[in-house]
Amino acid sequence: MKLYGSSLSPFVRKVAAVLSLKELAYELEQAMFGSLPKDLSPLGKIPAFSDGNLKIADSSVICAYLDDKYPDRPMLPQSPEDRARARWFEEFADSKLADLCGGGIFFERVVKKMVMGQDVDEAKVANTINTLLPPVLDYLEGELPGDGFLFGAPGLADISIATHFVNAGYGGYQPDAARWPKITAFVARVSALPAMQKQFTLERAIMAQMGGGK
Amino acid sequence: MKLYGSSLSPFVRKVAAVLSLKELAYELEQAMFGSLPKDLSPLGKIPAFSDGNLKIADSSVICAYLDDKYPDRPMLPQSPEDRARARWFEEFADSKLADLCGGGIFFERVVKKMVMGQDVDEAKVANTINTLLPPVLDYLEGELPGDGFLFGAPGLADISIATHFVNAGYGGYQPDAARWPKITAFVARVSALPAMQKQFTLERAIMAQMGGGK
Repeated sequence: MKLYGSSLSPFVRKVAAVLSLKELAYELEQAMFGSLPKDLSPLGKIPAFSDGNLKIADSSVICAYLDDKYPDRPMLPQSPEDRARARWFEEFADSKLADLCGGGIFFERVVKKMVMGQDVDEAKVANTINTLLPPVLDYLEGELPGDGFLFGAPGLADISIATHFVNAGYGGYQPDAARWPKITAFVARVSALPAMQKQFTLERAIMAQMGGGK
Repeated sequence: MKLYGSSLSPFVRKVAAVLSLKELAYELEQAMFGSLPKDLSPLGKIPAFSDGNLKIADSSVICAYLDDKYPDRPMLPQSPEDRARARWFEEFADSKLADLCGGGIFFERVVKKMVMGQDVDEAKVANTINTLLPPVLDYLEGELPGDGFLFGAPGLADISIATHFVNAGYGGYQPDAARWPKITAFVARVSALPAMQKQFTLERAIMAQMGGGK
């Protein structure tokens, strides 16, 4: 199995962590947005993934495939109702948290500044942190467990949420632990999983090379 | 079961058609973006859905739940590889086709003009139709079958793709049948399904009331 994408992408990290949680061996090939051939990623997006003859793109599609094809250590809970809730958290994270932590913070402060050499739109970052994120974090705070993971064993929903806070962290943002204690503790717990720690080693090396650090 | 949303939303139509294909009885409650209570739709998006005590939002999450909970007449094919391909088509449709057919055409020519009473950005519509859509349709043309549906019986992938062309149609756009014959025939075949026809009756009444028509 081969995963294609940049280690700093929250969606590449999500698939890599799921592969690790499922104890599936894979190779990672670094690839940027737009650089992959069409048969791997028809829209040029990362991550893309291959398993034998199968070539697919999109982190949600890849993770669902992994659970279908390799059902050991499932990433979704059992009951249809819990599965729906887990998939909702994944969707919430992939859309809303990605927009805010990714587009509103990481893209500005890391991608634009360190990769593209452009000026950071600090007004946009401030608006994200002070206005757009708080109601979203208030919602999430009310949904997360006080300890452990969302559905027992660590799974897709946990990884999907935590991965975006890692990118926000690279952009210098951490949620206020006094206002959002459950989020703070949850992100720390998920980040402490060996499946996540394994990613951070490489990521920090890439960040350091670009002149940033966490 | 209750489906909440506007009949003209491509994502509401998608869930409604899937419910019909699965022969599941439901009530539709018209609701606009932003009007639903947070417990039904935490981000205010439509569609939302309830089944007994379960309340969930997002068309993909709802459709996956329906297949988990009511496995008769499955909306996904059987093999992990085909399921991955079907989910990819759903994702491709929900993101790329939605942006172009929805944001680039339907939103401008129907929502802005008829609902919000604003000027249509015809330059944006022309750019969508002449520049952004063609490479995406060229890709899709290469993926669609010459007859029948993507994976045998009509399912999630077929509905997910066709629903966005219905909205483009309300905005006065049809793909050129000479350049994209497979897309043209595929959309016609999916649209002819009773599960889709059932939606159109109500939709056309709403369009007519707003002063538009197909």
